[in-house]
Amino acid sequence: MHHFQFQNPTKIIFGAGQISNLSSNIPQGSKVLMLYGGGSIKHNGIYEQVKKSLSAYEFLEFGGIEPNPRYETLLKAIEYIRKENVDFLLAVGGGSVIDGTKFIAAATYYQGDAWDLCNGAKAIKAMPFGTILTLPATGSEMNCGAVISRESSHEKLVFSSPLVYPTFSILDPTVTLSLPPRQRANGVVDAFIHVTEQYLTYPVDAAVQDRFAEGLLLTLIENGKIYVNEPENMEAASNIVWASTLALNGLIAVGVPEDWGTHMIGHELTALTGLDHARTLATVWPRLQMALKESKKEKLLQFAARVWNITEKTEADPNLRISQAIANTDQFFQSLGVKTHLSDYGLALGLGEQIAERFSKRGVLNLGEKGEITPNLACQIVNQSY
Amino acid sequence: MHHFQFQNPTKIIFGAGQISNLSSNIPQGSKVLMLYGGGSIKHNGIYEQVKKSLSAYEFLEFGGIEPNPRYETLLKAIEYIRKENVDFLLAVGGGSVIDGTKFIAAATYYQGDAWDLCNGAKAIKAMPFGTILTLPATGSEMNCGAVISRESSHEKLVFSSPLVYPTFSILDPTVTLSLPPRQRANGVVDAFIHVTEQYLTYPVDAAVQDRFAEGLLLTLIENGKIYVNEPENMEAASNIVWASTLALNGLIAVGVPEDWGTHMIGHELTALTGLDHARTLATVWPRLQMALKESKKEKLLQFAARVWNITEKTEADPNLRISQAIANTDQFFQSLGVKTHLSDYGLALGLGEQIAERFSKRGVLNLGEKGEITPNLACQIVNQSY
Repeated sequence: MHHFQFQNPTKIIFGAGQISNLSSNIPQGSKVLMLYGGGSIKHNGIYEQVKKSLSAYEFLEFGGIEPNPRYETLLKAIEYIRKENVDFLLAVGGGSVIDGTKFIAAATYYQGDAWDLCNGAKAIKAMPFGTILTLPATGSEMNCGAVISRESSHEKLVFSSPLVYPTFSILDPTVTLSLPPRQRANGVVDAFIHVTEQYLTYPVDAAVQDRFAEGLLLTLIENGKIYVNEPENMEAASNIVWASTLALNGLIAVGVPEDWGTHMIGHELTALTGLDHARTLATVWPRLQMALKESKKEKLLQFAARVWNITEKTEADPNLRISQAIANTDQFFQSLGVKTHLSDYGLALGLGEQIAERFSKRGVLNLGEKGEITPNLACQIVNQSY
Repeated sequence: MHHFQFQNPTKIIFGAGQISNLSSNIPQGSKVLMLYGGGSIKHNGIYEQVKKSLSAYEFLEFGGIEPNPRYETLLKAIEYIRKENVDFLLAVGGGSVIDGTKFIAAATYYQGDAWDLCNGAKAIKAMPFGTILTLPATGSEMNCGAVISRESSHEKLVFSSPLVYPTFSILDPTVTLSLPPRQRANGVVDAFIHVTEQYLTYPVDAAVQDRFAEGLLLTLIENGKIYVNEPENMEAASNIVWASTLALNGLIAVGVPEDWGTHMIGHELTALTGLDHARTLATVWPRLQMALKESKKEKLLQFAARVWNITEKTEADPNLRISQAIANTDQFFQSLGVKTHLSDYGLALGLGEQIAERFSKRGVLNLGEKGEITPNLACQIVNQSY
């Protein structure tokens, strides 16, 4: 395996009822800004629980952070924070609220155009923040990355900094009780594809990382359908919550190559059409794997054997083992209620060409672990995803 | 799964040649005390590498920390630290040196009898320290626990505190090149048994923790013999180093029951006879699992199936599947060159009774995840281990 550095300081507080531990994790005397999204937390009881836990603090609220959090909205939060001298942030929501909060935490102290942070500029300081996760999916609750959308330019870009690991994250699986099936299914697909982006590349003898990745995939497969169809099943919900956090906390990525091609193409699809993040991934993933099946052969065969139990014994032809494993995954997404073709979502032709043009313009010329995904190949992959 | 909290702040710096990054991880202007063991680092080049990396610091040395670090020796280090106003510690060694350094880090600031820290007293402050691991085995490089031996009373007790996570740990797999086979084999057995102590209990629907534990066990099995027999094989060494760190960094223990019975009995055996830690474990483990096979039935069957591929298809009788899995593990230890009976080490009869008496005296009356291991059962287990 390659050399690596790994450090993840986020404190995880996991279990039913753990929101009651909130106040012991925020420094006394802090002025807290609670950030949230569309207000679902006001209907499912979480808002009241948080308010109760924060009764000893001076605290303010900022709601309305969108799915695919918008730069324009986040700037308003920053203005409010500066005006009110807030010194601790609390993100209550899913990946979008947490991602938005990370950006706010760093951009509040950034001198100059804050959008630079999404174009590689280095954050110098960040406000401390905790999170209460309400939707397992992105893993944002235990990593230092964020994806921010800018409405004015239809861009969706990645911001990351070691300064924006959450101080703590409260993972209470019972918060999933009120989630609609669509959000549950999206979360499982998102987590599954996060794992594969760190796993389906080429082998570097990283035995533990491979086994952990496969363990997460098996957990998502074995618990995914139960989680989507049986909201009361807290065992399945707990396993999905913990698996989706570990899917993107950096651990399975250490010392191995990565291929974020599916996500990069997916981000463009969301930026152009507004389609749910996970649904863009589910359409792109099978086609990207097929397009690169020679290059990813060894790991795809390992994936077939260890995750889908498709081995030499069950199928002699390695190419068929690979296509079968990709088809099984496609079927798994569909079994959760997530359709896997762009045409299923009524999207018009031409997205491949648009995305290729956007990649070319931004200099995104060689995605994938070996740099094989040119704008042209990205175009083909998208067009095969209809 | 049960509710849990998890936070592990240690920074891991992994790979060949990473000792050269040492100085960028120690605060400038620190007065550093380098702690080590019997001096093997002076023969294998590590001492020179460290000295070179620390050239910009004022630094002192304290050598001679024993395998099973002795309280009496550690007190001398504390005296030296206080006298010299050291403010950063650097442990260069295996689990014993790192464990000793943890104790020193906390005991330096402890008011009163330092041995209290091994009897449940709470540390209030600890000196920051980093580690350079020279022997993969104990996982001490990424956790906050230590085992300390007191010569005067023949005690071997556990000290732990969230204040003694290493600030950083440098894991350079090439340091294993100079290890003798005995130390390599001991390390693999120790790590293997650490995993089982957090895994072979009763099921609590913790899907990820189980898969991760099984992944570590498979990695140790698949790489263990190569690592012991082919010192130049850096792929195997890298996998063993990373697996043994993750075997005891807290991650696979979250939300699940644990059974540290094998370790507790093993510590007594070392305290009484001086037998290597891992070798005590290898003798106790098979007998403890057999003694508790009804109680641990579900997990032992899962272990048989997922780790040793012994399933209903290969063996219809569940009891035989369990004994076969335990026998395979016993064979695995032996294949590394680690004998699995106390008589193999020429130890005289009577150890079971002595250990039972020591447990009774200290009030260690119910070890194991369900408290089933009474002093009497511990006696039986030890006596069956001859």
